[in-house]
Amino acid sequence: MNLDYFFKPKAIAVIGASNDPMKLGYEVFKNLKKYKDGRVYPVNVKDETVQGVKAYKNVRDIPDEVDLAIIVVPKRFVKQAIIDCGEKGVKGAVIITAGFGETGEEGKKEERELVEIAHSYGMRLIGPNCVGVMNTHNDMNATFIMDAKKGSIAFVSQSGALGAGIVYKTVKEGIGFSKFISVGNMADLDFAELMEYLADTEEDKAIALYIEGVRDGRKFIEIAKRVTKRKPVIALKAGKSESGARAASSHTGSLAGSWKIYEAAFKQSGVLVAETIDDMLSMARAFTQPLPKGKRVAIMTNAGGPGVLTADEIDKRGLKLANLEEKTMEELRSFLPPMAAVKNPVDMIASARGEDYYRTAKALLEDPNVDMLIAICVVPTFAGMTPTEHAEGIIRAVKEVNNGKPVLGLFMAGYVSEKAKELLEANGIPSYERPEDVAAGAYALVQQARNTGVLEDE
Amino acid sequence: MNLDYFFKPKAIAVIGASNDPMKLGYEVFKNLKKYKDGRVYPVNVKDETVQGVKAYKNVRDIPDEVDLAIIVVPKRFVKQAIIDCGEKGVKGAVIITAGFGETGEEGKKEERELVEIAHSYGMRLIGPNCVGVMNTHNDMNATFIMDAKKGSIAFVSQSGALGAGIVYKTVKEGIGFSKFISVGNMADLDFAELMEYLADTEEDKAIALYIEGVRDGRKFIEIAKRVTKRKPVIALKAGKSESGARAASSHTGSLAGSWKIYEAAFKQSGVLVAETIDDMLSMARAFTQPLPKGKRVAIMTNAGGPGVLTADEIDKRGLKLANLEEKTMEELRSFLPPMAAVKNPVDMIASARGEDYYRTAKALLEDPNVDMLIAICVVPTFAGMTPTEHAEGIIRAVKEVNNGKPVLGLFMAGYVSEKAKELLEANGIPSYERPEDVAAGAYALVQQARNTGVLEDE
Repeated sequence: MNLDYFFKPKAIAVIGASNDPMKLGYEVFKNLKKYKDGRVYPVNVKDETVQGVKAYKNVRDIPDEVDLAIIVVPKRFVKQAIIDCGEKGVKGAVIITAGFGETGEEGKKEERELVEIAHSYGMRLIGPNCVGVMNTHNDMNATFIMDAKKGSIAFVSQSGALGAGIVYKTVKEGIGFSKFISVGNMADLDFAELMEYLADTEEDKAIALYIEGVRDGRKFIEIAKRVTKRKPVIALKAGKSESGARAASSHTGSLAGSWKIYEAAFKQSGVLVAETIDDMLSMARAFTQPLPKGKRVAIMTNAGGPGVLTADEIDKRGLKLANLEEKTMEELRSFLPPMAAVKNPVDMIASARGEDYYRTAKALLEDPNVDMLIAICVVPTFAGMTPTEHAEGIIRAVKEVNNGKPVLGLFMAGYVSEKAKELLEANGIPSYERPEDVAAGAYALVQQARNTGVLEDE
Repeated sequence: MNLDYFFKPKAIAVIGASNDPMKLGYEVFKNLKKYKDGRVYPVNVKDETVQGVKAYKNVRDIPDEVDLAIIVVPKRFVKQAIIDCGEKGVKGAVIITAGFGETGEEGKKEERELVEIAHSYGMRLIGPNCVGVMNTHNDMNATFIMDAKKGSIAFVSQSGALGAGIVYKTVKEGIGFSKFISVGNMADLDFAELMEYLADTEEDKAIALYIEGVRDGRKFIEIAKRVTKRKPVIALKAGKSESGARAASSHTGSLAGSWKIYEAAFKQSGVLVAETIDDMLSMARAFTQPLPKGKRVAIMTNAGGPGVLTADEIDKRGLKLANLEEKTMEELRSFLPPMAAVKNPVDMIASARGEDYYRTAKALLEDPNVDMLIAICVVPTFAGMTPTEHAEGIIRAVKEVNNGKPVLGLFMAGYVSEKAKELLEANGIPSYERPEDVAAGAYALVQQARNTGVLEDE
């Protein structure tokens, strides 16, 4: 399934592009003006230009082939817009406009009609009732919200507002997405088909789904089974509790269904289950790293407390602390101060500099009993130190050893560790801020290694 | 137990205050220069002045009464410093210097000697091997780390580095502390005595403890039992797992002990158990609100997804979604749009403005079936709206109804909702960013209501 025309279109028409800053069509067109990989045309029935760009009365008037249309006109004009798009030969349309299936039976009928019209032209739909779609790898922001940070997670959300909230939150936290896809009512394209497309893309390292309800469970399972063999899929299911499920059904009009059924379906198809938004993001972020061959984790830290908390979380997730070889501990003893703990978790104590991080990471990665490394750094308490040198030490060790073992960072110092985190991320090493989050990442890598038969040691 | 001399001293001596930015004594004195409620004197054996302030060779030379000494000299000088403080009539000393009990038996012996000397003068000690103490309510930062944000949580940490990491993290996240107390090896003052002191202070609304190991369990339980009747105590215990416990014991030299024993002790004494750092902070932050009479929660939101996730988390915590009275739902129907859901969770949908938040919050707080309100706001998706008006609506309703029911906010939009969150916090309404965190807050309020006999509805 190739949906490139939704995410790498040569030309986009914004039907309902506006000069009025109070309208969504204003934001969408403004955001899309940054798009670099193709042309963007405003369609507006009244104005000659939109935000300084020549506008067209109808998508059919555009003197160019158009792959993608973003529809933000009032509801009563949507049907005609779809017909116009079909006549124009548009391949995909994102319907941001709301007021369809989520309002009841009448709306559901109208929605089905839109799909029928689209299909009769060979056109596919995302939405209606959504925030739009983004591809951070080519600066395509076809939504009315702020740009997500560029990253490696394809995030598909059934709740537009929650999706938007998550984009805003991740911008603040420095977490990146490759794509953000607000699917709205999923009148046409659904989780299954989007997953299938995302399974083969280069820039999406993991697929994260926020799910309220899946309509065709069989199709979801069948496709997920194939996809998870190639790429990790992480699902956050809302409406697990009875009250939550009731709330979900009133929200999207889809039946939330029993959590037990979903849980079994996810398990059967290799979909990783997230408990919270941060759990979902933490798992998905891990996949810029290779999959581990086993579940024995080495922890290195410059402070005892975080090492202890991380050991607890690792244990909670069913992973194991690696038993280091005597040789490794001897090596560590040779350069760490006497106060340091050379047993796993290795506590290099607060005096540890970048060089200690480098040598410790190297020794741990070379230990055959270690499948995976978690490198922790809290505020260096010695004047003149910044966590950047610690990040550099880790990166140097990883590059030098280069034996395919995953490495995750845990840098716990708010603003103080931001630069170090960015440095790690730029080198493909996910850097977390909370023990439970780094443990979620480690767990996800192990689960996906299990899914794909990479895990040797059980 | 009055320990005001540690947190509201009239005069402080910094023994080891330094002009060398590479030394901890430099940072400590620099931080303390901002102290407004008393005088601060540098003690330095060599320099005439420290950071432009006249210095004294010995604490005994200071021509003023000194209540508190902060000791940051090299280890070999600590014992004499304690003797000098005793002779001077100092009431409390914080020993930042490390190298004592955490290094083994010899260090433990030296530590005990320090305590004996201090007690012989009627002086009490915090530390050694700690980061220091802070009181944000009088700008006293007697540590070598950055100022915490002012707030209502007294945070006592057995890990200095983790404590520092948490201070840095909370500054970024806008979470405030009333006090930060790094207790280090707890050679003298321990969790129990500090809790006892904190139970009676006005500015500390909750006591949060990061615990690796408690030496005198019986004393802890006995005092905690009394304290939790007056003020909530929330404990995050590291070393719950076997591997974590092993790591903890090598870190502080204290026996982490079996988690089952701690769990029973916490339960018996009314101490609330936190699972993670954020869990601890989320619980502790709730106590600027009154305790609820029951566990029936009303949720209001401008987006379905977050309402569903919060309903799930509320359920997970054993709380209940309130069944709204018919009258309340009628009232909501009278002004909310037809698409809104007037059943709990009340989904006011994305068009909700400040006035809708006000009227909805008012109606929910006035419903006799509601014990507690969670008000959710995600990015308003309509141009020209900012979450500030939503926060204002909530605040207005709370002030007007004023019937003692707790209200918690969940504002999920990163930078976009920062101002709204600040506004809520300034009005004593804790504002969270994650569904699980607001649920932790709600849970903590109910548990403390149970502890203190306020909970009527079980």
